[in-house]
Amino acid sequence: MTDLVTFGETMLRLSPPRGDRLERTRSFDVQAGGAESNVAVAASLLGLDAVWLSKLPDSPLGRRIVRELRGHGVRTGVAWDTSDEKRLGTYYLEHGGAPRGVEVVYDRADSSVTTVTPEELATGVVADADTFYTSGITPALSETVRKTTGTLFEVAKQSGTTTTFDLNYRSKLWSPAEARETYEALLPHVDLLFAAERDVREVLDRDGDAVQLAHGLATDFDSDTVVLTRGDKGAVGIREGEVFERPVFEADTFDAIGTGDAFVGGFLTARADGGDIERCLTYGAATASLKRTIDGDLAVVTPAEVEAVIAEESGEISR
Amino acid sequence: MTDLVTFGETMLRLSPPRGDRLERTRSFDVQAGGAESNVAVAASLLGLDAVWLSKLPDSPLGRRIVRELRGHGVRTGVAWDTSDEKRLGTYYLEHGGAPRGVEVVYDRADSSVTTVTPEELATGVVADADTFYTSGITPALSETVRKTTGTLFEVAKQSGTTTTFDLNYRSKLWSPAEARETYEALLPHVDLLFAAERDVREVLDRDGDAVQLAHGLATDFDSDTVVLTRGDKGAVGIREGEVFERPVFEADTFDAIGTGDAFVGGFLTARADGGDIERCLTYGAATASLKRTIDGDLAVVTPAEVEAVIAEESGEISR
Amino acid sequence: MTDLVTFGETMLRLSPPRGDRLERTRSFDVQAGGAESNVAVAASLLGLDAVWLSKLPDSPLGRRIVRELRGHGVRTGVAWDTSDEKRLGTYYLEHGGAPRGVEVVYDRADSSVTTVTPEELATGVVADADTFYTSGITPALSETVRKTTGTLFEVAKQSGTTTTFDLNYRSKLWSPAEARETYEALLPHVDLLFAAERDVREVLDRDGDAVQLAHGLATDFDSDTVVLTRGDKGAVGIREGEVFERPVFEADTFDAIGTGDAFVGGFLTARADGGDIERCLTYGAATASLKRTIDGDLAVVTPAEVEAVIAEESGEISR
Amino acid sequence: MTDLVTFGETMLRLSPPRGDRLERTRSFDVQAGGAESNVAVAASLLGLDAVWLSKLPDSPLGRRIVRELRGHGVRTGVAWDTSDEKRLGTYYLEHGGAPRGVEVVYDRADSSVTTVTPEELATGVVADADTFYTSGITPALSETVRKTTGTLFEVAKQSGTTTTFDLNYRSKLWSPAEARETYEALLPHVDLLFAAERDVREVLDRDGDAVQLAHGLATDFDSDTVVLTRGDKGAVGIREGEVFERPVFEADTFDAIGTGDAFVGGFLTARADGGDIERCLTYGAATASLKRTIDGDLAVVTPAEVEAVIAEESGEISR
Amino acid sequence: MTDLVTFGETMLRLSPPRGDRLERTRSFDVQAGGAESNVAVAASLLGLDAVWLSKLPDSPLGRRIVRELRGHGVRTGVAWDTSDEKRLGTYYLEHGGAPRGVEVVYDRADSSVTTVTPEELATGVVADADTFYTSGITPALSETVRKTTGTLFEVAKQSGTTTTFDLNYRSKLWSPAEARETYEALLPHVDLLFAAERDVREVLDRDGDAVQLAHGLATDFDSDTVVLTRGDKGAVGIREGEVFERPVFEADTFDAIGTGDAFVGGFLTARADGGDIERCLTYGAATASLKRTIDGDLAVVTPAEVEAVIAEESGEISR
Amino acid sequence: MTDLVTFGETMLRLSPPRGDRLERTRSFDVQAGGAESNVAVAASLLGLDAVWLSKLPDSPLGRRIVRELRGHGVRTGVAWDTSDEKRLGTYYLEHGGAPRGVEVVYDRADSSVTTVTPEELATGVVADADTFYTSGITPALSETVRKTTGTLFEVAKQSGTTTTFDLNYRSKLWSPAEARETYEALLPHVDLLFAAERDVREVLDRDGDAVQLAHGLATDFDSDTVVLTRGDKGAVGIREGEVFERPVFEADTFDAIGTGDAFVGGFLTARADGGDIERCLTYGAATASLKRTIDGDLAVVTPAEVEAVIAEESGEISR
Repeated sequence: MTDLVTFGETMLRLSPPRGDRLERTRSFDVQAGGAESNVAVAASLLGLDAVWLSKLPDSPLGRRIVRELRGHGVRTGVAWDTSDEKRLGTYYLEHGGAPRGVEVVYDRADSSVTTVTPEELATGVVADADTFYTSGITPALSETVRKTTGTLFEVAKQSGTTTTFDLNYRSKLWSPAEARETYEALLPHVDLLFAAERDVREVLDRDGDAVQLAHGLATDFDSDTVVLTRGDKGAVGIREGEVFERPVFEADTFDAIGTGDAFVGGFLTARADGGDIERCLTYGAATASLKRTIDGDLAVVTPAEVEAVIAEESGEISR
Repeated sequence: MTDLVTFGETMLRLSPPRGDRLERTRSFDVQAGGAESNVAVAASLLGLDAVWLSKLPDSPLGRRIVRELRGHGVRTGVAWDTSDEKRLGTYYLEHGGAPRGVEVVYDRADSSVTTVTPEELATGVVADADTFYTSGITPALSETVRKTTGTLFEVAKQSGTTTTFDLNYRSKLWSPAEARETYEALLPHVDLLFAAERDVREVLDRDGDAVQLAHGLATDFDSDTVVLTRGDKGAVGIREGEVFERPVFEADTFDAIGTGDAFVGGFLTARADGGDIERCLTYGAATASLKRTIDGDLAVVTPAEVEAVIAEESGEISR
Repeated sequence: MTDLVTFGETMLRLSPPRGDRLERTRSFDVQAGGAESNVAVAASLLGLDAVWLSKLPDSPLGRRIVRELRGHGVRTGVAWDTSDEKRLGTYYLEHGGAPRGVEVVYDRADSSVTTVTPEELATGVVADADTFYTSGITPALSETVRKTTGTLFEVAKQSGTTTTFDLNYRSKLWSPAEARETYEALLPHVDLLFAAERDVREVLDRDGDAVQLAHGLATDFDSDTVVLTRGDKGAVGIREGEVFERPVFEADTFDAIGTGDAFVGGFLTARADGGDIERCLTYGAATASLKRTIDGDLAVVTPAEVEAVIAEESGEISR
Repeated sequence: MTDLVTFGETMLRLSPPRGDRLERTRSFDVQAGGAESNVAVAASLLGLDAVWLSKLPDSPLGRRIVRELRGHGVRTGVAWDTSDEKRLGTYYLEHGGAPRGVEVVYDRADSSVTTVTPEELATGVVADADTFYTSGITPALSETVRKTTGTLFEVAKQSGTTTTFDLNYRSKLWSPAEARETYEALLPHVDLLFAAERDVREVLDRDGDAVQLAHGLATDFDSDTVVLTRGDKGAVGIREGEVFERPVFEADTFDAIGTGDAFVGGFLTARADGGDIERCLTYGAATASLKRTIDGDLAVVTPAEVEAVIAEESGEISR
Repeated sequence: MTDLVTFGETMLRLSPPRGDRLERTRSFDVQAGGAESNVAVAASLLGLDAVWLSKLPDSPLGRRIVRELRGHGVRTGVAWDTSDEKRLGTYYLEHGGAPRGVEVVYDRADSSVTTVTPEELATGVVADADTFYTSGITPALSETVRKTTGTLFEVAKQSGTTTTFDLNYRSKLWSPAEARETYEALLPHVDLLFAAERDVREVLDRDGDAVQLAHGLATDFDSDTVVLTRGDKGAVGIREGEVFERPVFEADTFDAIGTGDAFVGGFLTARADGGDIERCLTYGAATASLKRTIDGDLAVVTPAEVEAVIAEESGEISR
Repeated sequence: MTDLVTFGETMLRLSPPRGDRLERTRSFDVQAGGAESNVAVAASLLGLDAVWLSKLPDSPLGRRIVRELRGHGVRTGVAWDTSDEKRLGTYYLEHGGAPRGVEVVYDRADSSVTTVTPEELATGVVADADTFYTSGITPALSETVRKTTGTLFEVAKQSGTTTTFDLNYRSKLWSPAEARETYEALLPHVDLLFAAERDVREVLDRDGDAVQLAHGLATDFDSDTVVLTRGDKGAVGIREGEVFERPVFEADTFDAIGTGDAFVGGFLTARADGGDIERCLTYGAATASLKRTIDGDLAVVTPAEVEAVIAEESGEISR
């Protein structure tokens, strides 16, 4: 049985060398990146049998995405777009220290995935999986994808597959009002919710401290588990009434992109292994801290490395 | 006064290292490429005052295009697209020897230039120019661009600006029938026509040997000059009845992309300097042969280098 | 059912930049390379369900090999070596034009695979497969591997799995006499034999023209099919009495390493699709010609590209 | 009308990769660098119409400099040196953390610019400009350049062009005594003076705190504006009696070279836009902080980025 | 006369780009690294006449090692291994920030040096040298090397050559018990001992504070000088009863590998120049701090740079 | 005893990537290059004990030159220039296929070597050497170097050191008339002369076929040996009346720079080993053919590789 199925868009990520700018660069480093494949890769590398569902152009660029994900052990269920309009979403990422900061330019409109329908996907894989995951980016891609997302949540619910959702609001894709409407329609179907505290306040328009926010979401949407991520302040999780607060593990950040997805991938892995909320948050946070040291969207880590981070904190090893 | 104004789309060109494939590459070389800016760059570097008109996204990527073209001396008249839908066309280019060949993947649909209207462009620059140039790619980009192209040809005609057109049929953009209809509407406004012999046969559906084809076009559309490019066989030009055949200059080809545009850029420069049809074809062919030795779309050459190629053939220099 | 199972060693391939020398280089390009995984990758990319069996060190280097192969769609059945003596075989490859030529320095002694036993491998996969393949390099790696190879051939034979063997004599691993003894013990179990004409003469010590050599091998070892590769002269195949000679497809060679493996991968794919000896040789030769244009051991190609090479020769397409 | 004209030397800047040393490197990153073109580029990118005047060898290296500057929108007024002695100044820059520090090796003696005379330059551009700028490096290059610098200051003064000077003492070019003599001859012609506090103390041999030093200079040389830069301590400006102190904006420094020039470029842009001394210092400091995050001499920034740095400090935006 | 002779293994060091991982990298940076050649290079660059003795495969890889060391002025006394089993030790180094840390994968078993005998080496060079140095890594390589190491110590002792030893315990090569036995056999022959405080506690199983540990070693083994290195806490040295404590010089660490060897190289250079224990520790610490800013194992520094670091601390220069 | 002493200038060679142009490149490959060090490196790698004499700036750049040469086994006798005017000669090399060709831009005027006097050099090394070599580039560098060259020839002659000279006329350094005057003054002191046939005709103004030219030179200047190099046509040698003509070995040319120096280095090595004129020409030609396949000025080859080239031609090996 499949442990985890994720569904969403993966893009080609193009980055100039450190210190250089998109405005003048002569070369790009090329990688695959997308919230749901990031999660699938982290989970796969940490031991889960993970499948990623999506739609890609039937082109060398689409095949490149599959190659990179497969390399990390993710099985891919791809609807290949052979239409004339097929295209791969891309995003340009420029690294930059303070006060400049990272700059991202998206070029993802009308990518092949925006036309994906349930009929094109192996929905049976969702029905047979232990857990289904997607992020709030996915339903924002197009009306068609929004419907497909809804259908996949329904398939999961009917099959007893645990549903997981990361709110992940992106202001470049839709307005808070649009997002809120979609989120509130999906959340009753979500068993396990991840959300940035800021999104809960600004998009879902809720008040209170972090624990109150988490409780409120869990109650209102009848969620099994709610995890609020709070940037440098760590994360707060609530599971069937049990609350746990987890600070971040300190890290020398080389590339912060994908940190949240690594957290989710680690969390879901620990959960599949029967971990309680403390273990899941800790495992997720350790995975996230390792991700920050690695170039690219993907948490290219091993279970032993995650355990070592945890053990070092707890003083179990001295190194 | 401006010597040459060109109008068209310029894309970001992304190429993996030699021997590598788009399907698995980890890095791209980045350059600007587009028929009309290629022509403007060649002409500018060979001595003309050249302007390129287009529309670009108001983003680091759009600015990157302008930076590269300006570096080669081209003045840019850009309508900056600030809409949410703005995007820069891109194309992926994979080099490959026989039997593989070069592979090109376009990702240019709905780029900012497809919405360009005459009102957004400095049409006065066209009116004041000696020569106006665009290629057959431009009207294929969108209905809007097709109309804008027509308007610019009209402005040129009314102002006494010489109009130049390179047929440049691209099967990925439209069908031969669509192209033919547009071409035949534009050609009566064209003073100087460049066309690949193959396009004349397959798109314009004409027969005969190269000279007959050129004569036919010149007569039917009342063109001042018609140049037929014939790949390895060189080019044939006819100007006010005078015919000249020009073989190619042998070259070690490093990158063949942009060879035709270099030819046009060289031809137009020689023509602006008062060259006859033989001189123009020769200067264009020498520029084209140099381009083949250089990485990228652009003919980064000097007048002295072009003259040296010509002189070496004629035995004027021994080296 | 698995179409193809291969068994053998895959190494890390380290190459300095073109024109540079191992003696002074500051950087290496890194890839995976090994006859049997090369064959599996080519077959996988051309459409077969291919599995590669081997033993690797349980280390980042071992995982790197798996990542690259999986990316190309190959399933991997790896015995992970966790012993203190674990190591990954490596080979250093220096490109060089005539009269220098390519230089290879192997560093593969005592690699993890040299200790692989049948018990460590999923022999059931061999029993369930349509075809089993290994090369003459494999039994040369160690006495242990030689026995394991023998066992796998027996498993295949007993299960009705077609057995395939590429003679592939490597003078750096053993003497012709040693090789001959092993080959002659294995060949009676081989249904489909690939061999370089030169190896047949120099190692198996046989005489005659290519067709005579092939006939002799087929008769003496009761092989279903014998294919003799002849370098620039192409290949000769004999299958159940039917003989076919196939010249090479011309190619601009960027990297010749892995050409023979690409040939085998293409041949086996065509054979699995029911192709006759002509089709198999042609498909293999076309795959091999494409490989020569690509950097690395691996034939990173698509079925459409192989078909295009064949079609172009036959005049079916003009391009 | 031209907003800003700068005059000075631009060199080819050659840097080994991070962590490598000039003593053993195998590759250089190549960029253009020189105080006056650095200022012109920053000002141009921030919105001014900027011209850079200089003399360059008529060679590919000289053309490379022009290409890079033009790309950033700077217009170039270059006297092309066609003599046998023509050469481009170069400088080698090795990055290094503490305690090693950055190492610079100049190779600029007898570069083409050292022979530049007023007759070779378009002095009319200076006369028509709003502001003229050069640094204290320029008159140190040669006796000829010193005279040319004097002439250009005179042209500016006579034409009502505001004159700006950055003291910028370089001990590798001349002694403090030589520099002081030249500076004191030029300063009476300077309307707007930039100087490092240290240079004022060590070269001009003045005492007092920063504000006293600025006042003293403004009084003694009848300057409209005096700005003292104080490294990590920020800058102090005095304009017609008004004093303002501006700390630096914190930055993750990737490359500190050119920070001072970025400051001047930002200051002059704000001044051209009518900014008061506070606005000018703030805008310059924000530009400088961005520069520190970017590889190379040049402040490749946008007005929006500079405004964002300022707004973030003032709490106007939260990000 | 030779100032310093070192004996030990040098490996090829292979590192992926910063932020990348061994598990997926496409390129390696290549350098030479080994404790004893690191020491020889530092000493040579700081002014000593240094010789490195070892055994290398007679191959391009072996020659590459010699090329790099000779470039830094080290004379090489190499026994060339022409056997079929010849191989060069390699090590893979992956940089990584906290919490990941640097990862090293050794592939050095059965390298050519493991078979080196005294007869293959120019032992006369040891007899004629002022100082002989090896590290605790060397006798751990093989039984043969252990004996050869013992022989070389004897040669040195008999010739009046000062013997130097850096304990340098490596847990991947042997157990603490094995190491201790070897160390305790060698230490009576050692005049000048370097040891990490941790190794003294954990391998030699001794207690006390750092000064007590140093005293104990000096007394028990009748050493002239004992230096204990204490990581961030600096070093403690005792020489003929005189004790000196030296903190580290602060450094921006780019690459920490080889810091200890740079310290030894600097120390030995100062000692050869007649420096007292304070001078030696200071010179070693300054060399070590510079090393940390440089990519690779080697301290590519100059005497002037080391002196500048010392002078800056002492306030002799202000910069 | 030293086998070979060479004297001349070595520069930093800076090359953009293949296909790129000096006019726009963002990176340079860096190497050392100079006729006399090229010869010394080839000879050293082929087995001679070779010393290179010169003067270099006391800077990281000067040390970089020494590092590279020493790495190849050349001993360096360098006068270190500590003056303020010290500089290292550089040259920019742009590769390019036909019809573009290779472009070289020299920046070597006033380099440190132009001030070298005999007093700064270890002339005793010349006196003790078997052979002394310099090229016609050296006396063209400055009047001072011309005199120093003369002095070294005198020292050699007086000591019985064989003198070798490669005419090597460079039109960028002096006129044919100037060169001829210097050459004719030096040639009576030359035992072994290399000259390009073209230079003999155009600079020495002599007529006849190649053999006649060689004979004429040998007779007129009382040379022991004269070798005329004839580009693609190979070389003609005459030694004490014996004539031998040697065609080139075919090569895939990657980088032609330094081919002539490799020829001389090979020739001198064979000569030192007692080879006759045929052997010397053959060994030189084989070394030269290998050089053409290697990036950079230097013939990074082994004696075994040279012998293999010769053996392959003679049919002694089949490969």
